[in-house]
Amino acid sequence: MLTNTRNHRIEWCDCDPAGIVFYPRYFEMFDTSTTLLVERALGMSKYDYLKAYDFFGHPLVETRARFLVPTRFGDGVTIESTLKETGRSSFQIVHRLMKGAALAVEGFETRVWVARHPDDPARMKARPIPPEVLARLGATESA
Amino acid sequence: MLTNTRNHRIEWCDCDPAGIVFYPRYFEMFDTSTTLLVERALGMSKYDYLKAYDFFGHPLVETRARFLVPTRFGDGVTIESTLKETGRSSFQIVHRLMKGAALAVEGFETRVWVARHPDDPARMKARPIPPEVLARLGATESA
Amino acid sequence: MLTNTRNHRIEWCDCDPAGIVFYPRYFEMFDTSTTLLVERALGMSKYDYLKAYDFFGHPLVETRARFLVPTRFGDGVTIESTLKETGRSSFQIVHRLMKGAALAVEGFETRVWVARHPDDPARMKARPIPPEVLARLGATESA
Amino acid sequence: MLTNTRNHRIEWCDCDPAGIVFYPRYFEMFDTSTTLLVERALGMSKYDYLKAYDFFGHPLVETRARFLVPTRFGDGVTIESTLKETGRSSFQIVHRLMKGAALAVEGFETRVWVARHPDDPARMKARPIPPEVLARLGATESA
Repeated sequence: MLTNTRNHRIEWCDCDPAGIVFYPRYFEMFDTSTTLLVERALGMSKYDYLKAYDFFGHPLVETRARFLVPTRFGDGVTIESTLKETGRSSFQIVHRLMKGAALAVEGFETRVWVARHPDDPARMKARPIPPEVLARLGATESA
Repeated sequence: MLTNTRNHRIEWCDCDPAGIVFYPRYFEMFDTSTTLLVERALGMSKYDYLKAYDFFGHPLVETRARFLVPTRFGDGVTIESTLKETGRSSFQIVHRLMKGAALAVEGFETRVWVARHPDDPARMKARPIPPEVLARLGATESA
Repeated sequence: MLTNTRNHRIEWCDCDPAGIVFYPRYFEMFDTSTTLLVERALGMSKYDYLKAYDFFGHPLVETRARFLVPTRFGDGVTIESTLKETGRSSFQIVHRLMKGAALAVEGFETRVWVARHPDDPARMKARPIPPEVLARLGATESA
Repeated sequence: MLTNTRNHRIEWCDCDPAGIVFYPRYFEMFDTSTTLLVERALGMSKYDYLKAYDFFGHPLVETRARFLVPTRFGDGVTIESTLKETGRSSFQIVHRLMKGAALAVEGFETRVWVARHPDDPARMKARPIPPEVLARLGATESA
């Protein structure tokens, strides 16, 4: 399965008056990790792959997260992101944010591959993930 | 049931390069709405209720959200937040972010009432929600 | 002079582990206030004026801020924003964030009117502010 | 002079609908760089040095920034941060964010060493920087 692991240090800017991560920041971290995962599969930066496949991005349709262990500024964490499933126009990613050996936060996301709506550029429309992209996600999967 | 409804305008700072809300920002909006809901029930500001009840806050243990309709800068939205359930030391809130008549985002959160751990001020510990607080949540419920 | 004043409540999400506003958040507030100021002058939303004038926005070239009084979650503040000067392709805005009668933060910004570079859509290029826009800024000024 | 240089990749979460960094995010980057600089001088994490010196942090009293070259998601940048001057209770830092060989953003900040006000823990009060800290800033300076 396509996986990406990265280290991250929790910073002051991520934390709230309780001194721990303000939870929307975890979703920022997960969003960046998803980008890195897709970049790894497609072999190009998000800036480039948005242009290459002439699509609009892969916004979330659903997300879920469990917060098990708080983290605070200065903590080093590891974020492991794994592509769990791909559908016709959607894919699912699981993120596991580890603080040492402990699972601190677990995030699940379902994203769709979207294009601008042909009749209205301000609207989006789900579109099948291109076969080439599916292959790359799969190719990486079996690697 | 305890409910709070507020209007909010999506701003440039909430949006990403796709021109729509960067989804972690929805969680910021929900967090603020939860604060407003608890403030309404307790009749004091969060700053004051954190001191009054000598606790550490009500961090999330779990959240879930569905993103149905994108919103963009300049959009006026309405956020309805409802206390769904209270447990011994936890409570659940549902947020419905409406764009006109359409449900744009739905968020579910489970929060715990926590105190600083007696043995280590850097750690947190779930604590029963004080009866007085439960009463106020309930009192408002039946209003 | 073109002016916009708005009320704002500092929220938990704006604050850092010291319990006060994390200062980059003041710049978010100022950015929103600038949008409201320009919207007021042009009589349309930013989404609409970006399309109407076929430009790319009014990014900052310089900013400066003084932080005099800390603010914390729950504080109600007032942000007064004033267009101080317009040049050929730039304009200057001053923001005064008041906490009660006290000036808490003062921000100065110089922005430029930019278009996408004709040779490279990924680059920006300063462009003269359209006469119609200047008139509206001026018209409001003398009002 | 005490200096810290770090690499950073601009991410989707840093950017606005124009596709470039939303400028308050530069201040977040600078804030993190200042933390790294002070951590390097004091030989401990911010979490630890806030406890070790029993103070409240080093909030900004003034900042200034010039934005010369836009950066966008996927850009690798380098942030060089230098302690320029130390006073009795304040210090100045200059940040230079480079995109390749080009200076993209330059930031200047004046910070104060503060403690909680003895009469009111919710207020802050400037306090002389401890001699030990000054020595470490200086010691590093001549290294």
